[in-house]
Amino acid sequence: TAVPKEVDYANYFCTYSFLYHQKEMLSDRVRMDAYFNAVFENKHHFKDKVVLDVGAGSGILAIWSAQAGAKKVYAVEATKMSEHARALVKSNNLEQVVEVIEGSVEDVTLPEKVDVIISEWMGYFLLRESMFDSVICARDRWLKPTGVMYPSHARMWMAPIRTGIVEQKLGDYQSSMGDWHNFVDETKAFYGVDMSTLAKPFAEEQRKYYLQTSLWSNLHPHQVIGTAGIVKEIDCLTATVADIEEVRSNFSLSITTENTKLCGFGGWFDVHFRGRSEDPAEHEIELTTAPSVDYCTHWGQQVFLVNPPTHVSEGDDLTVNFLMSRSKGNHRLMEVELGFEIQKHSGKLVAPFKNKYYIE
Amino acid sequence: TAVPKEVDYANYFCTYSFLYHQKEMLSDRVRMDAYFNAVFENKHHFKDKVVLDVGAGSGILAIWSAQAGAKKVYAVEATKMSEHARALVKSNNLEQVVEVIEGSVEDVTLPEKVDVIISEWMGYFLLRESMFDSVICARDRWLKPTGVMYPSHARMWMAPIRTGIVEQKLGDYQSSMGDWHNFVDETKAFYGVDMSTLAKPFAEEQRKYYLQTSLWSNLHPHQVIGTAGIVKEIDCLTATVADIEEVRSNFSLSITTENTKLCGFGGWFDVHFRGRSEDPAEHEIELTTAPSVDYCTHWGQQVFLVNPPTHVSEGDDLTVNFLMSRSKGNHRLMEVELGFEIQKHSGKLVAPFKNKYYIE
Ligand SMILES: Nc1ncnc2c1ncn2[C@@H]1O[C@H](CSCC[C@H](N)C(=O)O)[C@@H](O)[C@H]1O
Ligand SMILES: Nc1ncnc2c1ncn2[C@@H]1O[C@H](CSCC[C@H](N)C(=O)O)[C@@H](O)[C@H]1O
Repeated sequence: TAVPKEVDYANYFCTYSFLYHQKEMLSDRVRMDAYFNAVFENKHHFKDKVVLDVGAGSGILAIWSAQAGAKKVYAVEATKMSEHARALVKSNNLEQVVEVIEGSVEDVTLPEKVDVIISEWMGYFLLRESMFDSVICARDRWLKPTGVMYPSHARMWMAPIRTGIVEQKLGDYQSSMGDWHNFVDETKAFYGVDMSTLAKPFAEEQRKYYLQTSLWSNLHPHQVIGTAGIVKEIDCLTATVADIEEVRSNFSLSITTENTKLCGFGGWFDVHFRGRSEDPAEHEIELTTAPSVDYCTHWGQQVFLVNPPTHVSEGDDLTVNFLMSRSKGNHRLMEVELGFEIQKHSGKLVAPFKNKYYIE
Repeated sequence: TAVPKEVDYANYFCTYSFLYHQKEMLSDRVRMDAYFNAVFENKHHFKDKVVLDVGAGSGILAIWSAQAGAKKVYAVEATKMSEHARALVKSNNLEQVVEVIEGSVEDVTLPEKVDVIISEWMGYFLLRESMFDSVICARDRWLKPTGVMYPSHARMWMAPIRTGIVEQKLGDYQSSMGDWHNFVDETKAFYGVDMSTLAKPFAEEQRKYYLQTSLWSNLHPHQVIGTAGIVKEIDCLTATVADIEEVRSNFSLSITTENTKLCGFGGWFDVHFRGRSEDPAEHEIELTTAPSVDYCTHWGQQVFLVNPPTHVSEGDDLTVNFLMSRSKGNHRLMEVELGFEIQKHSGKLVAPFKNKYYIE
């Protein structure tokens, strides 16, 4: 995983250098409320403490930490956003406390160890972007043995859903393949070249694009047709890169809706701010990105389509087989292998389903 | 300009590895007809000759060259598309003639010099993507002294236009700034942080995005309100990287429409296939991406907005000052400085205009 810095910048960091993008995160009220409450309802974790903000962006978490009484905050940000963070720190009169450092947290040297690491490192379906690697690295190098992680815990969730998107995407895929056949005919007729040998790789490419790429979605709770299962639990204080590099999980789900169609799975996450068992939070805060009518986040949910949708009903049980690993070409993107078996309420087993997905 | 390979891949080549993208180019009838006719109406340039296809993509130009009678064609393609090209060559029974080589043309070693270099290297407004650099490199290394370039000449054009997009983009910009002020108020009220110091950089970022980034457009000829001027002429046989790295140009345009608004400039290009003066084409072919109702291309035109639009009328003369250079962060993208003065038909001079643009 020795990715050259400039490649990682082109593939990943570049988007974070736009204020527009930072503003989107800063406008996510669910996200903001959670971190805000986590800090200000647990001031004892911050009062007179040394804090490290990993991936400070605009510096918002560093500023809150300072406002909550930290004696020193190191705000490390890889992109030029650091300059805006510095301006913000200054205009909020916190330059005595917050020190903005431009650089990868992996490369930075701090003059001291810290009491708290605060970071908003979560990507789609928790682990996309692989930024938690950087938090682990910072933790292992800079957190005091008694230190606290903000957030302290994270979980990935998955639930069966219904959605009209399968038909839509299947239609898109089919119309794209219709187009292709036209294209082959015309290229032969007008330009004397037979392209038909590329039908298969083209179909694969389009299938991947339309049917195997997970979709950002803001699911309505009514679209969830069964129980949600925990795919992965992470203790931010102890997790290693090996623990998250590959997520392998088996779990069971039950359909709780009468006579419906299983069209896919929704994946989301939550994180908790619990402090440390020896030094717990006074008020435990939760940030969840589960389907909700009132509390939507910019993360939404990731949807993995099941094609074709299968009829299911209340009492049917699903055994799900989940494997998520990093894409070969880009360690910040994910590949998912998802399989499931349905045991009908009647006891009958339905032919198992298995598909590969890409979180791009 | 020593860009690491992997960065260039992430920023540029990656899109070309999709059949979908190659198909878009292969479906551009204006483009296809021009190259097809250039080859098949000038078979004497190909018959029993050695050809190099720079950036072969699907291999279409290499295949045509072989079909036109070439004795050997080297088809060099940097991406994995080379594998599809190889399959296509085979299924069209040309594997005796066409040799597909995966690699950057800069790195490849051919066993012989070539009679013809054929390449479709043109990006938006001709030079975006900076791929002509690679063609120059290939030409200087592999073209025989008597060799021919396909295409042989290229020109950049610019013309004054009218469009409703200025108002639209200005509205988008203003609503984004309205949003910003809301955001600042809410962040202060709910989260105790004053973001107002970032108003200026945010406005700059949004201005760049909405008003200073050139727009892909398919202009109707009626939108062109004056004469078109040649910004740059390139002789593909002799041009050097220094000649194209920076394009500096002064030219005059005349408004040919009564009582209208100058809302911007449209930029496009054409290329010609003329062979070489000692060995000319039998049928000279032109490929133009000028505004047209019937002959649109996937390149369209690039539009540079003038904000606010200025009233102009028939007989008004524009003196245009144009400077295009490569972006610091990405040598395949461009920055443009565009200035102009209007001398009204009456002789009156209008205050000069100057703006910076980005071709992203
Ligand atoms: N290894 C690393 N070192 C430093 N910064 C990093 C990093 N990995 C990601 N980042 C930065 O982390 C930020 C994550 S987005 C969160 C921004 C801010 N803390 C907020 O909560 O609003 C981005 O700005 C990104 O550039
Ligand atoms: N330096 C270089 N070496 C090899 N291939 C290159 C290159 N620069 C660009 N390319 C390739 O050139 C192609 C340009 S698109 C044109 C494809 C094809 N010749 C056609 O006319 O349809 C892309 O596939 C791109 O990957």
